[in-house]
Amino acid sequence: MGLLGETLTQILIPVAAIVGIGFALLQWLLVSRVRVSADPDSGLDNGCSDRLIEEEEESVDIHGVAAKCAEIQNAISVVKGFSIKSEPCTYNKENLCKPALANAIFSTVAFLLGALTSVLSGFLGMKIATFANARTTLEARKGVGKAFITAFRSGAVMGFLLAANGLLVLYISINLFRLYYGDDWEGLYESITGYGLGGSSMALFGRVGGGIYTKAADVGADLVGKVERNIPEDDPRNPAVIADNVGDNVGDIAGMGSDLFGSYAESSCAALFVASISSFGIGHDFSAMSYPLIISSMGIVVCLITTLFATDLFEIKDVTEIEPSLKRQLLISTILMTVGIAIVSFVALPSEFTLFNFGTEKTVKNWHLSICVSVGLWAGLVIGYTTEYYTSNAYSPVQDVADSCRTGAATNVIFGLALGYKSVIIPIFAIAIAIFVSFSFGAMYGIAVAALGMLSTIATGLAIDAYGPISDNAGGIAEMAGMSHKIRERTDALDAAGNTTAAIGKGFAIGSAALVSLALFGAFVSRAGITAVDVLSPKVFIGLIVGAMLPYWFSAMTMKSVGSAALKMVEEVRRQFNSIPGLMEGRTKPDYATCVKISTDASIKEMIPPGALVMLTPLIAGTFFGVETLAGVLAGSLVSGVQVAISASNTGGAWDNAKKYIEAGASEHARSLGPKGSDPHKAAVIGDTIGDPLKDTSGPSLNILIKLMAVESLVFAPFFATHGGFLFKWL
Amino acid sequence: MGLLGETLTQILIPVAAIVGIGFALLQWLLVSRVRVSADPDSGLDNGCSDRLIEEEEESVDIHGVAAKCAEIQNAISVVKGFSIKSEPCTYNKENLCKPALANAIFSTVAFLLGALTSVLSGFLGMKIATFANARTTLEARKGVGKAFITAFRSGAVMGFLLAANGLLVLYISINLFRLYYGDDWEGLYESITGYGLGGSSMALFGRVGGGIYTKAADVGADLVGKVERNIPEDDPRNPAVIADNVGDNVGDIAGMGSDLFGSYAESSCAALFVASISSFGIGHDFSAMSYPLIISSMGIVVCLITTLFATDLFEIKDVTEIEPSLKRQLLISTILMTVGIAIVSFVALPSEFTLFNFGTEKTVKNWHLSICVSVGLWAGLVIGYTTEYYTSNAYSPVQDVADSCRTGAATNVIFGLALGYKSVIIPIFAIAIAIFVSFSFGAMYGIAVAALGMLSTIATGLAIDAYGPISDNAGGIAEMAGMSHKIRERTDALDAAGNTTAAIGKGFAIGSAALVSLALFGAFVSRAGITAVDVLSPKVFIGLIVGAMLPYWFSAMTMKSVGSAALKMVEEVRRQFNSIPGLMEGRTKPDYATCVKISTDASIKEMIPPGALVMLTPLIAGTFFGVETLAGVLAGSLVSGVQVAISASNTGGAWDNAKKYIEAGASEHARSLGPKGSDPHKAAVIGDTIGDPLKDTSGPSLNILIKLMAVESLVFAPFFATHGGFLFKWL
Repeated sequence: MGLLGETLTQILIPVAAIVGIGFALLQWLLVSRVRVSADPDSGLDNGCSDRLIEEEEESVDIHGVAAKCAEIQNAISVVKGFSIKSEPCTYNKENLCKPALANAIFSTVAFLLGALTSVLSGFLGMKIATFANARTTLEARKGVGKAFITAFRSGAVMGFLLAANGLLVLYISINLFRLYYGDDWEGLYESITGYGLGGSSMALFGRVGGGIYTKAADVGADLVGKVERNIPEDDPRNPAVIADNVGDNVGDIAGMGSDLFGSYAESSCAALFVASISSFGIGHDFSAMSYPLIISSMGIVVCLITTLFATDLFEIKDVTEIEPSLKRQLLISTILMTVGIAIVSFVALPSEFTLFNFGTEKTVKNWHLSICVSVGLWAGLVIGYTTEYYTSNAYSPVQDVADSCRTGAATNVIFGLALGYKSVIIPIFAIAIAIFVSFSFGAMYGIAVAALGMLSTIATGLAIDAYGPISDNAGGIAEMAGMSHKIRERTDALDAAGNTTAAIGKGFAIGSAALVSLALFGAFVSRAGITAVDVLSPKVFIGLIVGAMLPYWFSAMTMKSVGSAALKMVEEVRRQFNSIPGLMEGRTKPDYATCVKISTDASIKEMIPPGALVMLTPLIAGTFFGVETLAGVLAGSLVSGVQVAISASNTGGAWDNAKKYIEAGASEHARSLGPKGSDPHKAAVIGDTIGDPLKDTSGPSLNILIKLMAVESLVFAPFFATHGGFLFKWL
Repeated sequence: MGLLGETLTQILIPVAAIVGIGFALLQWLLVSRVRVSADPDSGLDNGCSDRLIEEEEESVDIHGVAAKCAEIQNAISVVKGFSIKSEPCTYNKENLCKPALANAIFSTVAFLLGALTSVLSGFLGMKIATFANARTTLEARKGVGKAFITAFRSGAVMGFLLAANGLLVLYISINLFRLYYGDDWEGLYESITGYGLGGSSMALFGRVGGGIYTKAADVGADLVGKVERNIPEDDPRNPAVIADNVGDNVGDIAGMGSDLFGSYAESSCAALFVASISSFGIGHDFSAMSYPLIISSMGIVVCLITTLFATDLFEIKDVTEIEPSLKRQLLISTILMTVGIAIVSFVALPSEFTLFNFGTEKTVKNWHLSICVSVGLWAGLVIGYTTEYYTSNAYSPVQDVADSCRTGAATNVIFGLALGYKSVIIPIFAIAIAIFVSFSFGAMYGIAVAALGMLSTIATGLAIDAYGPISDNAGGIAEMAGMSHKIRERTDALDAAGNTTAAIGKGFAIGSAALVSLALFGAFVSRAGITAVDVLSPKVFIGLIVGAMLPYWFSAMTMKSVGSAALKMVEEVRRQFNSIPGLMEGRTKPDYATCVKISTDASIKEMIPPGALVMLTPLIAGTFFGVETLAGVLAGSLVSGVQVAISASNTGGAWDNAKKYIEAGASEHARSLGPKGSDPHKAAVIGDTIGDPLKDTSGPSLNILIKLMAVESLVFAPFFATHGGFLFKWL
């Protein structure tokens, strides 16, 4: 038994969650102090644009979608046969476990809770983001430091709400479910996995749909506005500008939030499920069982302290301090969390216990697990810093890409693609090391907690990530409101740092998705009763090669979707410029709503084929080709998808910042490429536009591909194991 | 025993090879009948440009490179311990086999023969190509049909010489080696594998170095000539134009030739090696042993008949018939070859025999092997046709990409990348099916002969592939010689079809590389004594994920190399335009030689880092992490590299043809995008330039990555199995 008793565990987890929520509310309060009123001097017609944004964000019908998913989950549960009698447990045959029907019902409930928490987090994130945009712009009048704090606090609201809500709902569910399950922890934690699936399913909508939404608007707005009409980005005369701003919130805030929440929920559930069949699950040691939750609780406390470093202990006085300050957040939270992990492992875990390892048992010490979690955490930091190096315009990679704009758009694209490919190397080694170390020490449980370790500082990660789109939109509002050049410069500086942090966030998201998928893959293999996934078997190998192809298929779909939706947007924007008299002169308002509708419709319609690919592949592979082939598909899509996702988001981020580097003209070199409108700048704009769907749609959506296929396979594993593979049986 | 006796086998193989060489010489003779003389009317200053081309192509120091490789092979052989006494055979312990020293010496000899055959094939290919360029241009004056036949015949010279030479040298080597080895077939065919390694090592230089050479020149020439100076492609005033033309021969002819020769040699050797430990190897059935060689012999005969369809039985009267005629070549050869395979399998193989299958034995019937070879052959056709569909401007994918140029270069790039991703789907399914079927019927031997099946029509495949750069250069010469618009139009039509066939050739190359690598992977696993490569083992999984990363690392290197070399070329071309008076007016000749030197130096210097990555990875993985991790690396790089390679070459091919589609203006739609110099055309030119390094350098070079790592691992397998993995042992 560990030092931490059950009572203390029962107190600490909810307290940490509530502290997190309280801290988020405090940050909200601080942001809300920034007064927003229709200020005739600044010319900020906030009432109008703000209302429009709020109206439209609700038009994405997330609630209907959640209900539909619950139906699917229900349908899924039918497969298991619905026994209504208690049965011997799978892993501990001597005990009686609750009937399959109960598990189906409870996991449906958990699924709904996960989906709702995800939607709620995304919704609240969008609320605070739209709430913060204008306030950040207004604070920028007082100085860059004030604006930074407002944007960062708003990001923190999102980060803490998500982390704390996720933890609290999971904690409460476990305790409520326990009232029924009692000693049947196997059933309890199996049904809890529905929470992870729920969270991840919503991410499909947030990431893929949101990604298509935002980039259709962004690319469409840029192609007509910047390229054809030669008006600035975010000019209020551009009919697609509101759709673009709404899109930043939908894609970057809600999409990223639901994606990270999904990873968080899935890694927690995977860890809990594996733990339930370990020695402390069988021995009913609640503190040890709750290790993943206590880690997350500690994470909230650590992130809370970390946030103070950015908002209270230091002050930003110059634009050059923004990026170092955000980077410092990552480092501080990682160092503090390493200590936190050691403490938690020492007090919550027994000094020695056994873990389930594909049919065999493995003896593990508490400090082993401490290493597993820490290696995930530090791998996250390495991925974050590498991403920063390759996408920030403070370093040579982006500067080289900017320099290649001298010889035109073609060399810009060639150098940008090469940069993305190169940026894969270090993150992959970091992930490989994390996998090897955590697996060696803690088998599949080790990998699940390593994923959790990477996500333990999620509140800080999300804060600096959400900071990006908030600053982006603050800049947009400054432009739309016709504010002075100086203020636009400040918001641009915030935004440039935001691009980098957004890329860092995407790095975290894909890194944690890789670890989570691997943990889920391990759980799938255990449940399907496979003892080895042998590449030398042709069944596995064809799965592997087809699986490695899926990210390409998926990316082709999402990129084409953005392309077609953007073309529609271009036509509409052109139509408005040509047919609305006085629009170019700023005398008439454009019809923003039609553009918003085009993005909304496109995101819903175009989401179906990639969604179908994700949902149907495991079903087809499992049913027709069996569990070995499916295991190959999962492994193939995981190892290939990670590369495509990282390279796509970094290439896009680098192009975006290469453009900003030229525009800002902060160095001799940058000025030699500029100013805005020069040939190198035009080449940079082309790169930026190409990068948009790569970094915000196709790249990050791959996280969902690999996670959702893994968790779906896990849910269907018993069915595939008994009934699957009938094509091979028939041959 | 099969129907075919040893004597007949001994006669048939060399006869087929000699017939192939004879046919190649006949085609050469036919091409040479086209008279080339300094014709003052046509303004074709052939003497000058031709001499320049020939001088410079020899400056690539291939001979020195071959010697260096032999040294490496020698060094490699030292590892095995150099026993000088006869030892018990590995697979048949009762017999005594030749000492390891003999195997080392003979495999070095085989390596040298393979390397020399590869170099010879590449060299002869370049000779005939430069020989054919001007003749094709001259024939274009008589009509498109004549020009087509000349270009195609020249391609056939290359194809038949390579196929027949490869077969003949291999056949002679086996017979000479048998004089020493006698009954020790295990040692005989083990040493013969050096032939495959030799062929593939040269391909590293041809593909990677050649790719960098050609694209540095091409991109550099286009960036200054077409974009800045607004002079046509291939204009003789452009100083980089000769380097570009030489590059087409170096990269597309010598590179492709050495790549396909490498695949051919390796799949033959892999099949022979596996067969030597099967029942007909142990039973000393020479006809059955020679099955791979007889298949290749049959292939030469089939391709010979197929060629007559293009050159003698049908005549091209219109430019629209070019592509269908080339496509028909593929179909005819595949259908005839299917019959040929059935005949060969029936006469050469015993009706039933056993094959070695990872330590167990598998009973196989002769028609099973017939299916294995055929499935590879047809998979090749499917890959070829899919590639054609995605890269020919006769179909909607390329037309959609061309259409997206309306909204600028950015949408062109987005649609082009999406097209490349999408084009991966069908080839991967074809490869997966080929793997599954051939493995199920013939274990690893089945996969090796499936690869051989795909390559059995190599003479036709290379003929239509080499046709591409020949037509490209014919167009270049027409432009340089200032020939009439009508002739340029004809050569352009030849060239457009050539782009598609080049893409088809690349599809074949990567498809066969995948199968060959898998066969070599199987051989490696057998020799390393691994019985399972389990993805669930962390050692294997980290290999898998790092292996999947390698194609990105490698592509980043090669793309960056092309980018930097092209920038150097741009500077030199700009310098010449600015400093040589009268150059733009055509009064002075540019300094072609400096540009050629830049390409040559860049190709040699920039080849080192990617070459080192390929050569060092297996050594590092095997020595430090052991055979399981290395197996993971090989599988990961194989399944990931295939996708990157196919998507890169198809994206590049599609962009090239989208540009040509706009330029040709053959339909209402195409004319609405043109003419040359319009905004959509400019956007298309940007796409074309980006595609150049993708389709001719980074994409096809990946074949070498996956093949060479596999064959190197195979060579070192015994060493890694005994001494490797010391990092894990130490931990």
